[in-house]
Amino acid sequence: MSGNSIGKLFTVTTFGESHGIAIGGIIDGCPPGMALSESDLQGDLDRRKPGTSRYTTARREDDEVQILSGVFEGKTTGTSIGLLIKNKDQRSQDYSDIKDRFRPGHADYTYQQKYGARDYRGGGRSSARETAIRVAAGGIAKKYLKEQFGIEIHGYMSQLGPIKIDKVDPAVTNTNPFFCPDADKLDALDSYMRDLKKSGDSIGAKVSVIASGVPLGLGEPVFDRLDADIASAMMGINAVKGVEIGDGFAVIEQKGSEHRDALTPQGFATNHAGGILGGISSGQDVIVHMALKPTSSISVPGKTIDVDGNEIDIITKGRHDPCVGIRAVPIAEAMLAITLMDHCLRHRAQNAQVHSQTPDIAGKAE
Amino acid sequence: MSGNSIGKLFTVTTFGESHGIAIGGIIDGCPPGMALSESDLQGDLDRRKPGTSRYTTARREDDEVQILSGVFEGKTTGTSIGLLIKNKDQRSQDYSDIKDRFRPGHADYTYQQKYGARDYRGGGRSSARETAIRVAAGGIAKKYLKEQFGIEIHGYMSQLGPIKIDKVDPAVTNTNPFFCPDADKLDALDSYMRDLKKSGDSIGAKVSVIASGVPLGLGEPVFDRLDADIASAMMGINAVKGVEIGDGFAVIEQKGSEHRDALTPQGFATNHAGGILGGISSGQDVIVHMALKPTSSISVPGKTIDVDGNEIDIITKGRHDPCVGIRAVPIAEAMLAITLMDHCLRHRAQNAQVHSQTPDIAGKAE
Amino acid sequence: MSGNSIGKLFTVTTFGESHGIAIGGIIDGCPPGMALSESDLQGDLDRRKPGTSRYTTARREDDEVQILSGVFEGKTTGTSIGLLIKNKDQRSQDYSDIKDRFRPGHADYTYQQKYGARDYRGGGRSSARETAIRVAAGGIAKKYLKEQFGIEIHGYMSQLGPIKIDKVDPAVTNTNPFFCPDADKLDALDSYMRDLKKSGDSIGAKVSVIASGVPLGLGEPVFDRLDADIASAMMGINAVKGVEIGDGFAVIEQKGSEHRDALTPQGFATNHAGGILGGISSGQDVIVHMALKPTSSISVPGKTIDVDGNEIDIITKGRHDPCVGIRAVPIAEAMLAITLMDHCLRHRAQNAQVHSQTPDIAGKAE
Amino acid sequence: MSGNSIGKLFTVTTFGESHGIAIGGIIDGCPPGMALSESDLQGDLDRRKPGTSRYTTARREDDEVQILSGVFEGKTTGTSIGLLIKNKDQRSQDYSDIKDRFRPGHADYTYQQKYGARDYRGGGRSSARETAIRVAAGGIAKKYLKEQFGIEIHGYMSQLGPIKIDKVDPAVTNTNPFFCPDADKLDALDSYMRDLKKSGDSIGAKVSVIASGVPLGLGEPVFDRLDADIASAMMGINAVKGVEIGDGFAVIEQKGSEHRDALTPQGFATNHAGGILGGISSGQDVIVHMALKPTSSISVPGKTIDVDGNEIDIITKGRHDPCVGIRAVPIAEAMLAITLMDHCLRHRAQNAQVHSQTPDIAGKAE
Repeated sequence: MSGNSIGKLFTVTTFGESHGIAIGGIIDGCPPGMALSESDLQGDLDRRKPGTSRYTTARREDDEVQILSGVFEGKTTGTSIGLLIKNKDQRSQDYSDIKDRFRPGHADYTYQQKYGARDYRGGGRSSARETAIRVAAGGIAKKYLKEQFGIEIHGYMSQLGPIKIDKVDPAVTNTNPFFCPDADKLDALDSYMRDLKKSGDSIGAKVSVIASGVPLGLGEPVFDRLDADIASAMMGINAVKGVEIGDGFAVIEQKGSEHRDALTPQGFATNHAGGILGGISSGQDVIVHMALKPTSSISVPGKTIDVDGNEIDIITKGRHDPCVGIRAVPIAEAMLAITLMDHCLRHRAQNAQVHSQTPDIAGKAE
Repeated sequence: MSGNSIGKLFTVTTFGESHGIAIGGIIDGCPPGMALSESDLQGDLDRRKPGTSRYTTARREDDEVQILSGVFEGKTTGTSIGLLIKNKDQRSQDYSDIKDRFRPGHADYTYQQKYGARDYRGGGRSSARETAIRVAAGGIAKKYLKEQFGIEIHGYMSQLGPIKIDKVDPAVTNTNPFFCPDADKLDALDSYMRDLKKSGDSIGAKVSVIASGVPLGLGEPVFDRLDADIASAMMGINAVKGVEIGDGFAVIEQKGSEHRDALTPQGFATNHAGGILGGISSGQDVIVHMALKPTSSISVPGKTIDVDGNEIDIITKGRHDPCVGIRAVPIAEAMLAITLMDHCLRHRAQNAQVHSQTPDIAGKAE
Repeated sequence: MSGNSIGKLFTVTTFGESHGIAIGGIIDGCPPGMALSESDLQGDLDRRKPGTSRYTTARREDDEVQILSGVFEGKTTGTSIGLLIKNKDQRSQDYSDIKDRFRPGHADYTYQQKYGARDYRGGGRSSARETAIRVAAGGIAKKYLKEQFGIEIHGYMSQLGPIKIDKVDPAVTNTNPFFCPDADKLDALDSYMRDLKKSGDSIGAKVSVIASGVPLGLGEPVFDRLDADIASAMMGINAVKGVEIGDGFAVIEQKGSEHRDALTPQGFATNHAGGILGGISSGQDVIVHMALKPTSSISVPGKTIDVDGNEIDIITKGRHDPCVGIRAVPIAEAMLAITLMDHCLRHRAQNAQVHSQTPDIAGKAE
Repeated sequence: MSGNSIGKLFTVTTFGESHGIAIGGIIDGCPPGMALSESDLQGDLDRRKPGTSRYTTARREDDEVQILSGVFEGKTTGTSIGLLIKNKDQRSQDYSDIKDRFRPGHADYTYQQKYGARDYRGGGRSSARETAIRVAAGGIAKKYLKEQFGIEIHGYMSQLGPIKIDKVDPAVTNTNPFFCPDADKLDALDSYMRDLKKSGDSIGAKVSVIASGVPLGLGEPVFDRLDADIASAMMGINAVKGVEIGDGFAVIEQKGSEHRDALTPQGFATNHAGGILGGISSGQDVIVHMALKPTSSISVPGKTIDVDGNEIDIITKGRHDPCVGIRAVPIAEAMLAITLMDHCLRHRAQNAQVHSQTPDIAGKAE
């Protein structure tokens, strides 16, 4: 049933299969008066798209987005924005051999059972290609968040298999194909990925996203909490199996005296909470981490069954990322932007004039 | 703005503050014809409620739930179910000293800034007391899931500070105040908690929930994915800072050949995925883990500010759990039940007759 | 399934049956900082409640509403507001004879078939008693709309059977049991109702509601149009069978040159549109009319069937309004208030700063 | 803010302006396994499109719809269906003269004030062109409703200005450009419209839609009532100012003994209720009427203001329907189909097995 929309006031709805005619989406709720053109969105689409380096799939997808509505004379009109990306490189023949078999670790089996049939070409609707529209939608949100609220979002790859990133230098992140913010780890990554590719196997990754400049007060306290909505947005990215806010799973072994972030007249002393307290943004940086599983599309042989239930061997041929986590960086940024955008609009609906805020310490110092 | 509801077809809406007149909720979407009385819900409420052991707060809350509507002659009628729990033990005086100060690690500061005022008594709306209604709602869902689909849900504490649980014996879980499924760890837990209480500090915990008997095909593939909805439900529990499905953060260091669960004619060979592929349940057990932070309400002194921005020292007096994670077990079960219930109803809306399923291997063997 | 909620940002959810323990609701989305107490809501509840005149049912319902949460130290906190009205006068025995039969024109038959069972006492969930909570929720919305936006809402009975109201004097409306704004029609109404009561029959009515001071720009243009949402809110009132905005069904025979409201530098010259153009409020008065059917609970004998499908005669005994339309006036006001409140909050979410308005002519003159 | 979606389980979201690149939509929630191609939708699109007779606008719009996703090997897959209709005949120059003025009776003024700017070309987003996508979405719903539930929907023009239709012969409706089901009125309509066109004026109309074969039990009883949702769907059609279910406004003067539909062992004796009791379908025909205002785009001169607030004269040139109500017939059918589809899916979510229905008398006889 319907489940292709996210957001309450800033609503993103998508359609499209990997090898269909086109993918697209409707962005509903962008306020009027913002300058917007395709070029504002293309940068992130290019960061996401495959074929940009030898570490990602060699598949070429010209993710050229077209804005079909909602923009007039260069500015948003406040009405729904239609986005379209035509599918080009659709070599369907590559996928004909998976028509009658279920690739392990993929959605082939669950789609087949849920729907009784599936568009098997390239994963159909379950393909990561669908996320291109999320990235475009996120681009709209990012622009608005920056211009109206001063929010900036920085995503990076924070671990690849055994290689952990120690240093986060945002200036480095987008200068390398790994979205790695630590220049000292680039050689290790390069060498690890080369070996991995030779082995025909794949590897998991950790991706982190930080939003700075987030206004205090985003998030509803019980169910539409900011952290709950972020968790949903991130877990909804293909291959994500875990989400953390702030210290995340490390809190299990922390003591209260250690974890709690002291408030001082100059601001919070630390940010173990990851910028969210009681489901509401505290004005500190919002910090999110997520774990992405290794793709199951590998050339290492595996066991599976065909659609008739017979045991078979499977080797995934074709062009696949040995680490799908890498390209998730712009997707994670987009999903955080979409979530924050929704909550910024919701927050605004509450009358600021009705109550007078106590002096805002957030952002003074950390 | 509105944010006190969860679920699309099985919708739970709650109200109430820790020290107000009552807390309550409306459960909308329970199908008609199910036998239901207060006693069906009281068991889980008693598991959640404080004051049941020396390791949890000594505060007594008689969480006696009352069903106000939606049940006629002992059966649900299909209309909305009103639930009410009166607040009894409301010693407001205990909290008068926190009226003008922000407890670090709590929602005091974010509530005050978001709303311009707050019900400071016992945390008001941000108090974990609100979760009693979630537990009652979860009880309704659990009963329906079990009777109509054969789904059973088992939650347990899987780590407390440094103490990791190795063995999961469901028969043990509810026999001890830790919801610990490993009888061999009870002494260590007892001794650890005793020392912790003396130190006046608190500790984090990990909680796990397993749903068995989950039908194949729950979850919408893009945004209303089953894993995304579970992540949201769990991250929305007070103190939760991380959520995992299946292998969770361990996937970062896994290889594809290791992670992917082979399909065999007898069923899946393993369950690294945690029962969800492409956002859709695979028919295997759904496995969820979460990390809960240590409470900030401790007697170890800390730094904070008052409502005028002055630096002050803070010591939380009163009755507080040294490990709030423990009592989260029934809450996590309830949130998983509510999420599965919503998706079971959504799944049913899709016409089973339109497509014919391929033979279902799930559940055959693992 | 779930369907007991209305509103997107200002959300009202209700529960309760006519003869259950209590009815209640959760009002989610009221901004913080508004002074609120039960007495603010009681006035409208008293206007709605039966037993206030000899023309309405003699049933006494002490519709005393209790605010259970969301208000602290006399002001709304921004969290969900729990409302409760206990049922008192529950003479169940009056209804025992309708247990096994379907009253024609009532929801007995459709409830029985939809749910397989029904709470037959007094109509159960389909009883107009449920609307008491809508009236209380509307009271909260009315207060906010008036204080923050200067919106005022005036409902009145505009036709009762053949008696049409010609003059609308708001000062008269609440001085008589008919909510009739025309003092010259009171005698005719009194005499008509007396005769009707003698005959044991009932009659339909027309109710009108006007909102003045409505800001320009409420309503989303395509599906969440202000007029569409008003139509839904009004058609959702028990017994309503038709809804009009502005000139309503009279437009069928109007010419374009007649219908269109000229804009002048001093404002709109007329208001055929009823204050809404393209789904968006124009700044003029919002004008809504609705038709309410005569109740089927009459002492005139009729034909129906019992639950086994046998033909039987039916006479409804007991205490029933000969014209249910009269008491719908405060309900219609409440539903308009709830709808406008939701759209005022939605409108605020759109950034006023982004665009600069052209000079606002609305309200200058009409 | 977001408001371009309708439906809860069968969700239709649209985008596009009259003179933009394209209009389109996403249909989310169509179950899998239904045969579907563009040709299934084109028939209704052709019925709606302008330029088909001399009584509608001479504007040619080749409303050729393209299905971009959600259909694989000729059948729906259960994923979201992307629809696209390219705009062709975009003579923007025709509209340049209305750039700086507000056409009375149009959404020009409210859009300008709400959004601070507007796509003035042909009404932009407020153009009836947007409804083409609703018609295409309705085509999908109609097909499913017919195949899975046996529901059929018949819309017709029931009054045009002073000319009332007396006889409803479905076989006649689609044989004439007026969607008039009464062959005896065709000459009068032809002559009336000819005169009207000469006068340069326009006229209102009444449109009726009947759904037969509707299963008993559709609709939630309180807020998501079937009648409330229908009212919203119909009032959301451009130019609609009134909606009736069953006898509608005629109930004002009816007595209870007259209005109530007797139940007999052979079914309901009459259908004053229009097939809905207590918000729930009774199994009888669902009967809906609506009033459509005369278009304000006429060549009769009128008064208005320009964007600077100066008084000016206005004459609408160009190609406009003298009676926009006529072309609303397929739109009204589509909106009823979309609403019924949503409720059919919602109804299915409720477990039929839990309760056993009493014997269904609906449909036996009327």
